[in-house]
Amino acid sequence: MSQLADLAPETPSPGVTAPAGFRAAGITAGLKASGRPDLALVVNDGPSRVGTAVFTTNRVVGAPVVWSRQVVSDGVVSAVVLNSGGANVCTGPAGFEDVHRTAEKVADALAVSAGDVVVCSTGLIGERLPIETLLAGVDVAAAELAADGGPAAATAIMTTDTVAKTAHVTIPGDFGTFTVGGMAKGAGMLAPGLATMLCVLTTDAEIEIDVAEAALREATRQTFDRVDSDGCMSTSDTVTLLVSGASGARPDPAGFTAALTAVCGQLARALVADAEGATHDIAVTVTNAETEDAAVAVARAVTRSNLFKAAMFGNDPNWGRVLAQVGTVPESVAAFDPELLDVTINGVQVCRAGGAHAPRTDVDLAAAREVHVLIDLHAGTEVATVWTNDLTHDYVHENSAYST
Amino acid sequence: MSQLADLAPETPSPGVTAPAGFRAAGITAGLKASGRPDLALVVNDGPSRVGTAVFTTNRVVGAPVVWSRQVVSDGVVSAVVLNSGGANVCTGPAGFEDVHRTAEKVADALAVSAGDVVVCSTGLIGERLPIETLLAGVDVAAAELAADGGPAAATAIMTTDTVAKTAHVTIPGDFGTFTVGGMAKGAGMLAPGLATMLCVLTTDAEIEIDVAEAALREATRQTFDRVDSDGCMSTSDTVTLLVSGASGARPDPAGFTAALTAVCGQLARALVADAEGATHDIAVTVTNAETEDAAVAVARAVTRSNLFKAAMFGNDPNWGRVLAQVGTVPESVAAFDPELLDVTINGVQVCRAGGAHAPRTDVDLAAAREVHVLIDLHAGTEVATVWTNDLTHDYVHENSAYST
Repeated sequence: MSQLADLAPETPSPGVTAPAGFRAAGITAGLKASGRPDLALVVNDGPSRVGTAVFTTNRVVGAPVVWSRQVVSDGVVSAVVLNSGGANVCTGPAGFEDVHRTAEKVADALAVSAGDVVVCSTGLIGERLPIETLLAGVDVAAAELAADGGPAAATAIMTTDTVAKTAHVTIPGDFGTFTVGGMAKGAGMLAPGLATMLCVLTTDAEIEIDVAEAALREATRQTFDRVDSDGCMSTSDTVTLLVSGASGARPDPAGFTAALTAVCGQLARALVADAEGATHDIAVTVTNAETEDAAVAVARAVTRSNLFKAAMFGNDPNWGRVLAQVGTVPESVAAFDPELLDVTINGVQVCRAGGAHAPRTDVDLAAAREVHVLIDLHAGTEVATVWTNDLTHDYVHENSAYST
Repeated sequence: MSQLADLAPETPSPGVTAPAGFRAAGITAGLKASGRPDLALVVNDGPSRVGTAVFTTNRVVGAPVVWSRQVVSDGVVSAVVLNSGGANVCTGPAGFEDVHRTAEKVADALAVSAGDVVVCSTGLIGERLPIETLLAGVDVAAAELAADGGPAAATAIMTTDTVAKTAHVTIPGDFGTFTVGGMAKGAGMLAPGLATMLCVLTTDAEIEIDVAEAALREATRQTFDRVDSDGCMSTSDTVTLLVSGASGARPDPAGFTAALTAVCGQLARALVADAEGATHDIAVTVTNAETEDAAVAVARAVTRSNLFKAAMFGNDPNWGRVLAQVGTVPESVAAFDPELLDVTINGVQVCRAGGAHAPRTDVDLAAAREVHVLIDLHAGTEVATVWTNDLTHDYVHENSAYST
């Protein structure tokens, strides 16, 4: 069912440096006017250098995404450098050259190939980065790399996030014991500036590139892809997985995928919990769908409704707005009979068979931050959950006041 | 290009009673707690009784939509009865029986067939209407029917609208002179309660049913379908066209479609201008698209971005958020090269060839209510405009405080 429910992030976690074979650093290069940390470096010390990544599907992408897609194409990644304070998107050939120079700088500092350095940037679109400041910061970060540097790295990639987001799990087994760690930033997609979601995952398991790629796709599909705070897709989203193999453990693909999904689930849930301006974390679960895709499509339609999200902010269990959104999903995408739909909000079945049931006054939304909306399609046996947040005054304020 | 631009509604217009052969009334039945007018009746006195309608494509629809679809299936409509104060959606068999009784009551009062009476309702979802109050109101409305009753009818269908919306055009020609009139309600889809859009169009031209149906589909496609304030589709949207033929004029299909489109355009523009809580009316025009559908898809993607709309509220010409939304449209839907995209906001080309061009400070959004965003895809010759509004604190307030 939901990979996100009941997975409260384990805090504090060493994050990307929880597994063996990794060092990390987070420093202040001076990219942010606020003077807060803004540059992170994560290095895979091996013995394996297997690495892969998934990226935004937006057709307008930042120069770092163009570069990093090329980097991961051979399945080898030695390091990830990440900056906040500027997204380096829509910056033309000069912006791409900035990425290239950044990767070369990291390569020089670490004695690795620039073609094995993933670059991630987050911040405002359409402005060049102060590249000399960034390059100077790379030297500082390289000098501070440490086996306990995960939390500092997680802090340096924050933009409007209020807490650093780290997680890890350690799995013992016949195959040996391995750890998956990770860090992420992005204020639940509710943040300003398109709220780029950046994530670095690390593991000391021994994993081949094919398994790593498949596991990363499946883990992100079940977790980050089902967090949809405002439906706005970033130009820079990047989730990178680095495999050191330092534990010598060889989990089977299913076990590794489960561990990776657990860490992604914790980080995704942390993104929702930190959504800017939100007063409710909302899980929309669709049950008894014909297919998982149908369940996701219906849940996503509801999580993208401003009217539904504004009602949640008003602590109004307005199931009419839920049904109206369910009804927008074409029959070719999700089979259901509108006259069979049930809606349960925080345990109260306010709509049964397409009509009013329990009084909406039975639902006390003001009492809890979490809202669980359960939609029964009565059309099959599949289930999926998509998380979102409510639409609040603070969302409007943050996003109308950002770049000016 | 845009059927909506530069078509300021002609105020005051007699609306649905502008053409010959129609009477209308708007009265207070007592459905609204506010005591404002809440019941409208529009009657076609012929000689023709040709009528057709288009409805919401939502799969969850109100009982009035189920009823009225059946009414228009034979191409004959004698009258339209419309109420505010309750949408009669998700009300089950009892709600459908309420619609049936309403149509029978109108039929008795006007000596027409109940099967020729279109019924429209707007208001909160999931609650029964006070049906006896409504039926008593029908008698009052029938008694007040008048050849100058258009404005009263337009007033009685208002919900959160701040002004009644009426329009008409009179077209002289070799074929004779004919008039198309209309009224609409719906606060630009930005209003609470899904902001059902109801519209009644009337004409005294002599038009066959096939031409009437095709003209209505084309006119709504070019106008109401391109107003998208918050992307939330109502369960009750209904646009009905009544043809009296009383002028004896026989325009050709293209001429009639143009006149109908002009009236729909005026009404659609009036909906945008009256959007609840909005501070900007925003026209997103996509030029040089490969197909009209591609232009509409790209424009719609931008008009549905909360981040873009919040930036407009903040008077921030944030073209990065425009490009990021353009990039979400799949290549199968709209061909374009991200590195060729231009964006012009209120005459200032802030983005050229996918990167920054004129300084964003050159755009003074605070100076005008209308914002014109022009996106050049450089991929063809087709053009389309979609209208929306900005995302404001008042939108959140209205929609979080509505039903509670």
